[in-house]
Amino acid sequence: MIVVLKQGVQEERRAQLIEWLKAMGLGIHISDGDYQTVLGLIGDTSKVDMDLIESLDIVDSVKRVTEPFKCCNRKFHPDDMIVEVGDVKIGGGNFCMIAGPCSVETEEQIVEVAKAVKASGANMLRGGAFKPRTSPYDFQGLKGQGIELLKIARQETGLPIVTEIMSVSDLHLFEDVDVLQVGARNMQNFDLLRELGSFGKPILLKRGLANTLKELLMSAEYIMASGNEQVILCERGIRTFSDYTRNTLDLAAIPMLRELTHLPIIVDPSHATGIARLVPPMALAATAGGADGLIIEVHNDPMHALCDGAQSLRPEEYDALSKQIMSIREVVAK
Amino acid sequence: MIVVLKQGVQEERRAQLIEWLKAMGLGIHISDGDYQTVLGLIGDTSKVDMDLIESLDIVDSVKRVTEPFKCCNRKFHPDDMIVEVGDVKIGGGNFCMIAGPCSVETEEQIVEVAKAVKASGANMLRGGAFKPRTSPYDFQGLKGQGIELLKIARQETGLPIVTEIMSVSDLHLFEDVDVLQVGARNMQNFDLLRELGSFGKPILLKRGLANTLKELLMSAEYIMASGNEQVILCERGIRTFSDYTRNTLDLAAIPMLRELTHLPIIVDPSHATGIARLVPPMALAATAGGADGLIIEVHNDPMHALCDGAQSLRPEEYDALSKQIMSIREVVAK
Amino acid sequence: MIVVLKQGVQEERRAQLIEWLKAMGLGIHISDGDYQTVLGLIGDTSKVDMDLIESLDIVDSVKRVTEPFKCCNRKFHPDDMIVEVGDVKIGGGNFCMIAGPCSVETEEQIVEVAKAVKASGANMLRGGAFKPRTSPYDFQGLKGQGIELLKIARQETGLPIVTEIMSVSDLHLFEDVDVLQVGARNMQNFDLLRELGSFGKPILLKRGLANTLKELLMSAEYIMASGNEQVILCERGIRTFSDYTRNTLDLAAIPMLRELTHLPIIVDPSHATGIARLVPPMALAATAGGADGLIIEVHNDPMHALCDGAQSLRPEEYDALSKQIMSIREVVAK
Amino acid sequence: MIVVLKQGVQEERRAQLIEWLKAMGLGIHISDGDYQTVLGLIGDTSKVDMDLIESLDIVDSVKRVTEPFKCCNRKFHPDDMIVEVGDVKIGGGNFCMIAGPCSVETEEQIVEVAKAVKASGANMLRGGAFKPRTSPYDFQGLKGQGIELLKIARQETGLPIVTEIMSVSDLHLFEDVDVLQVGARNMQNFDLLRELGSFGKPILLKRGLANTLKELLMSAEYIMASGNEQVILCERGIRTFSDYTRNTLDLAAIPMLRELTHLPIIVDPSHATGIARLVPPMALAATAGGADGLIIEVHNDPMHALCDGAQSLRPEEYDALSKQIMSIREVVAK
Repeated sequence: MIVVLKQGVQEERRAQLIEWLKAMGLGIHISDGDYQTVLGLIGDTSKVDMDLIESLDIVDSVKRVTEPFKCCNRKFHPDDMIVEVGDVKIGGGNFCMIAGPCSVETEEQIVEVAKAVKASGANMLRGGAFKPRTSPYDFQGLKGQGIELLKIARQETGLPIVTEIMSVSDLHLFEDVDVLQVGARNMQNFDLLRELGSFGKPILLKRGLANTLKELLMSAEYIMASGNEQVILCERGIRTFSDYTRNTLDLAAIPMLRELTHLPIIVDPSHATGIARLVPPMALAATAGGADGLIIEVHNDPMHALCDGAQSLRPEEYDALSKQIMSIREVVAK
Repeated sequence: MIVVLKQGVQEERRAQLIEWLKAMGLGIHISDGDYQTVLGLIGDTSKVDMDLIESLDIVDSVKRVTEPFKCCNRKFHPDDMIVEVGDVKIGGGNFCMIAGPCSVETEEQIVEVAKAVKASGANMLRGGAFKPRTSPYDFQGLKGQGIELLKIARQETGLPIVTEIMSVSDLHLFEDVDVLQVGARNMQNFDLLRELGSFGKPILLKRGLANTLKELLMSAEYIMASGNEQVILCERGIRTFSDYTRNTLDLAAIPMLRELTHLPIIVDPSHATGIARLVPPMALAATAGGADGLIIEVHNDPMHALCDGAQSLRPEEYDALSKQIMSIREVVAK
Repeated sequence: MIVVLKQGVQEERRAQLIEWLKAMGLGIHISDGDYQTVLGLIGDTSKVDMDLIESLDIVDSVKRVTEPFKCCNRKFHPDDMIVEVGDVKIGGGNFCMIAGPCSVETEEQIVEVAKAVKASGANMLRGGAFKPRTSPYDFQGLKGQGIELLKIARQETGLPIVTEIMSVSDLHLFEDVDVLQVGARNMQNFDLLRELGSFGKPILLKRGLANTLKELLMSAEYIMASGNEQVILCERGIRTFSDYTRNTLDLAAIPMLRELTHLPIIVDPSHATGIARLVPPMALAATAGGADGLIIEVHNDPMHALCDGAQSLRPEEYDALSKQIMSIREVVAK
Repeated sequence: MIVVLKQGVQEERRAQLIEWLKAMGLGIHISDGDYQTVLGLIGDTSKVDMDLIESLDIVDSVKRVTEPFKCCNRKFHPDDMIVEVGDVKIGGGNFCMIAGPCSVETEEQIVEVAKAVKASGANMLRGGAFKPRTSPYDFQGLKGQGIELLKIARQETGLPIVTEIMSVSDLHLFEDVDVLQVGARNMQNFDLLRELGSFGKPILLKRGLANTLKELLMSAEYIMASGNEQVILCERGIRTFSDYTRNTLDLAAIPMLRELTHLPIIVDPSHATGIARLVPPMALAATAGGADGLIIEVHNDPMHALCDGAQSLRPEEYDALSKQIMSIREVVAK
């Protein structure tokens, strides 16, 4: 950690700060410039409160030189992590195609969609049983019953199932789910993350609406530090001033996260845009940009979908898109 | 709800959409303009999926004309809500001053700060027992023990206590807490909100980092629709491109929320700025802008505070600030 | 235009508003709902001040149903515009590859880069002669001399040249430039836009850092309404809270603009990310997302570049990238 | 400037970088930590391209320790700058009240408003003659004629006049204007800024929609480095995801700029909110937050204003507000 002092700081106050830092067990390397003094802190700075130091009136600025995340840091894990879900591999050159309806509605619906997306090349099935909704008056999902329907669809198709967990108290219902999704609104629900760290199932962790990549990695760190290394990161759009799409898809996050972490990185173009006809170009863009997979909403009857029909593709649209994705994938994988 | 169709829509597809809308039990009022047709939907549109309709290729845009929130809507509750916490009243012209340390650390610390802020005019005590931290390696709060220390401070000073709840599973520890705070990261933790709706204690609901005012009100609606009307809203800064403060304090939210809802609105200048020396001017600004109260971090030894010391005032700074707040309050309350 | 009145508006005030609107020559269609009254304004609403009406205390909200842009509106120009620059065509299925250094520095440099990018498949040369710099102490470009060097490079390679114009007063120096670029900071320099409308050269118009797609189109409208239809739009990243890249590349703008306008749309991954090693994946993503072309910074010696070396590719990197772009382009163009 | 190298960098590449830095005439101070090496650059780093170094694959991050602005830096000018406009002083404890219509429309209008705001305590008159409008079809201002009308109003009331300059080519019309305003869209129109640096009139420089405080100061630096020290900074709202107001007023900018610069700082609550009824609370908030003045839109007939009527106060509203501002000012100035 580097601490830059303001110009003309009194010798006494400077000595006081240095004493205080030393009292934390840190070595201090002092470098006097023409205009400013820079302190280099040597040792374990992970418990040093950077904001506190920055707020001192004698301090100009502070900079951390080592990232605060370890378990998910590529520096310590140079090889790609490959998450395995049954026969499906994610990461390390393996591309995954997750598809399915926003909400599970009926057995007929989920089985039909599952068969359709499988035929188009999907290797995992998504479907919401617990739905986070802005309004308490909106449909909140079939909950436990929805998970049972997903299992039926899995039995019919062999596709592993991915579904969202919203609360620690529902965890017992997810014993037989293949991948647990943490939604954007829960990315910093730290109690939930910690519990998932000891649940022993792969976790699909979505980036929050207004979270930085470092915060996303720190949330992965919560899960991993509790013992679960099977984490898949998901970029799904951030909130910006731009208002023509629901969110702004931040695809540069793919190569940037690739440098910072060894975890697989997938993209959700459906929630990112919120508009079905923008999903195919953004799915192709994400593939070309190096994503390890895509999670896409597909519905057999978007006009009657109970939620988020606006962003769902019809099975025939998904089928056409899959073929293009595969062609792009071939170019990129070379 | 108003649906604007695109130009040159085929008669058949238009008829199909109208049929579908009628099938939901809605009356349809058709208005043909020179360029576009506008459909006015009459009846209960609360279950109509606005996004789905907007995504149809024959639709140009959709507009909701009635807000989706009811319990917290000033239209249906013209008089200010006054939340009562013991003898303390919040809202309806009553100004509340909540102060205390970021984290509860020791009995000595919390009692000393409580006495100091009471002497300066604070009428409620804040202190974190459960702390949401970005990093799993940071101090997470004293938890249950912290709440016990807060109760001791309450006994010593008579100040009601406000502290953050992060998880439904901790709720039993909050039976004897006066006001439960929902932090910015949990503003859309819907399970938690619903549980608080039946807990029977006043709730201080903070606006999320990237949430609109409507979303804040919908979260209040979750609590109120579950039976608890005692909700206090709190503006605490939003995340923007601007990087010199931790967040950007959005003070225009005060008069805007005032129009939309009858709930009290307070401001947290400490978390909004993250820098102690910016807290006084922003506390004064919030007061002048019409806030119903302030929640401010005060610490007796910021240099050693376990978290967020950067944004805490010393007791003597809080004392000086309180006097100015009161003077501003007199001008505004006229 | 649709005006939604608030609940319980006095008959008299409502009548007053309607009179005022009629006085502007508008027809008014009144639709009374259970809760609210909606006024449909019929006729030429282009001069109605939407913000003013929205601010009236009896008005809940206002919605424009026809876009305020005409010249660049696909509704009125269903076929793609093809901008022609010598033999090079942009738009309508023609892909353009613009490449070159951030700044023109020496004859040797610009000619060498021009030859290199041409060999890799570029069909236009970019290079900054006038440089917008945040600091008055930074290198501001070779100005007129830089344009002369660009012309030499054009003569040597046959590549048309693209360079930025910052001020109306420099326009005489651009008589022999092939495409004039308007930078992000000047997207709403309306005097400049108007002048370019009568200059008779193709314009490459970059989206501003914090501008919506509608604002970008209105700026294109300024140029087109003044008589110049040869406008190429360019997405180059927007400013958001996200801080690991210089800007956030908003690729969904490509398919969205495609719907709204018939103008060609290209992408600048160099300025969007500001980091050379993120340029290739984002260039591929933009191509897969449907862009009509790419503008990429290439420098033969980034370590010594006078500006923006950080985001420049070396010629051999550009060459490898070009081949991948062409492969992606083949998939997408099918 | 501090350069943090990545872990495990090859000795040879590190030596190469150090040589390159030394070749720029810099002294290099090397500090080896447990994980990383930090280079401290000593000497004139103002011409070092920070982004270029940061982009090198052996570099982790770079930090500038001295700000790149000098003329407007409080470090070198500890005393408040007081800008004098005739008898009016701005800054250094002097509060200025600028008021007037968005656009100058007629002699009658501008004179009437000028008299009204003067009677309410305003000490400068604003009025737009050149209007930046998003649409080429909107009213663009009376231009030269508008400036003549402002002069008449000045003659009638003695109030100095403030009006916006959009283009260098109009500068001759501003010879007899008291304060030239640079609007948000032109904050980085560097040619204009440079010209104003030699024009010898006080400049009111508005913060751009998406500009940081450092960028605002760098733009002031353009003017000051060209010889004109009479610069007044103006916060007028930034663009964020928040959509209920036109912009988000960032009041913490006042105390933060106060630390960084000695220039006066005023606030424009009219453009920040875009809604007349939010102007009074935000004007009071800005005053309480320490602003050196306010610029507020006042119109005698907002219903018929040619632009921005939505955000204008009526003279009687401004009068009531002025009294409250003065009372707040008394509290703050103590």
